[in-house]
Amino acid sequence: MNDSHSFIAPVPLEKAYRLINHGPTVLVSARHDGVENVMAAAWACGLDFMPPKVTVVIDKIARTRDLLERSGTFVLQVPTVAQREMTYELGTLSLHNEPEKLKLAGAELFRMEGVEAPLVAGCSAWLACELIPEPHNQQQYDLFIGQVTAAWADTRVFHDGRWHFETAPPELRSLHHVAGGHFYAIGEAFARPGSEI
Amino acid sequence: MNDSHSFIAPVPLEKAYRLINHGPTVLVSARHDGVENVMAAAWACGLDFMPPKVTVVIDKIARTRDLLERSGTFVLQVPTVAQREMTYELGTLSLHNEPEKLKLAGAELFRMEGVEAPLVAGCSAWLACELIPEPHNQQQYDLFIGQVTAAWADTRVFHDGRWHFETAPPELRSLHHVAGGHFYAIGEAFARPGSEI
Repeated sequence: MNDSHSFIAPVPLEKAYRLINHGPTVLVSARHDGVENVMAAAWACGLDFMPPKVTVVIDKIARTRDLLERSGTFVLQVPTVAQREMTYELGTLSLHNEPEKLKLAGAELFRMEGVEAPLVAGCSAWLACELIPEPHNQQQYDLFIGQVTAAWADTRVFHDGRWHFETAPPELRSLHHVAGGHFYAIGEAFARPGSEI
Repeated sequence: MNDSHSFIAPVPLEKAYRLINHGPTVLVSARHDGVENVMAAAWACGLDFMPPKVTVVIDKIARTRDLLERSGTFVLQVPTVAQREMTYELGTLSLHNEPEKLKLAGAELFRMEGVEAPLVAGCSAWLACELIPEPHNQQQYDLFIGQVTAAWADTRVFHDGRWHFETAPPELRSLHHVAGGHFYAIGEAFARPGSEI
C-alpha cells in the first residue's frame, strides 16, 4: 500500500467539481466481471455542480470503455507530476494486447467501500461516478456522462474545499497533457485581492 | 487594436485540439443580430481530433448562449494571466442587466474574415466553431458541441504545432479556474526523454 493512503479524506459532493475544474488530465478506471483496467484521458470535464456531473471522452478502441459500459460505474482520478510516466504508459499500452498493462505501467490499485471501480494509488483526487447512459453521445461522440457519487482527495494538496498546489510538495501537482507524453504541471496561483472561496 | 495582433497566425486544423488539450479556462464569444457578448467558461473540452470538435457547458442564464444558439456559431479563446481580472469580470457580469459589460470588463473585440462571432483581443488562441445542434444535450445538460472550422494562436506562445509556455512571457500563460476568480496559471513543462511531438 502506498504511503500516501494516510492522507486520503472525503471531499463534500458540492466541492467535488473543483477537483477537475482546472482541467487536469485524468485516469479513468473501471472493473467488470473480475477484469479491471485504467486509461489516461485528457478530455474530462465538469458538467454540473450539484449533483456533480462530469464528461469524459473514451475511444471505442479502449478496453476500459467496455468495462465502464458493462458495469455502469467508473472512477476519475487526478494523477500527479510524480506519476507522469505511469500516466503516459496507461494512455499508450492497451489491455487488449498487453495483459500485464497495469503492472508494466506501475499502477497500484485499491478499493473504496461501496465503489465498484478500482482506485489508482498515489493520485491526488478521486471521483467515483455512475454512468448516466446516453447511447447517442456514446456512439456518435465517444462521450460519456457520469454523476459523481463520492469523492476523495489527498489532504496534503486539497483541503478546506480547494486545491493548495502552491504550498504542497511540487510532485503532487496535476498534469495537463500536451501530446505524446509531454505534460505541463499546474503552476502559480492568482487570488483576487480580498476574496475568499 | 491590441499590439498582440501582429503575432496572430493560423493553426492547422489537425493541431487545433492542442489549443485546449491542457484544460484552460476559456472565453466563449458569439454574435447575433448586431448583439455580441463574451463569457468565461471553465468547462470546455476537446471532443475529437479531426475534424476537431469541442464541448462547452453554458448555463441557461447566459446571454451568450442565446446568441450562440441563434447564430449557430461561436469562438472559444484562451485568455492569459494578463487577462485574469477581465476573465473574472466576463464570467461574473451579465449582459442581461449590464449593457456595458464588455466595456466594463475591458474586453476588446476584433473580427476574422469568414467568422461570424467576434474574437477577444489579447488572448493566446482562438477556435472558430460551428454549433452541431444536439437539442437533448443542450436542454438536459447545458452541453454544446462545436466543430472547429478555423484556429489561430499567438506565435509568441504557440508555434510549430504546440504550446511553448516555458519560453514565452509569463503573462501569456493560460488560466485554470478554481472558483471565485481564483486561478492557477499553467506551470512547468515535462517532456519525455528523446521524444518529439
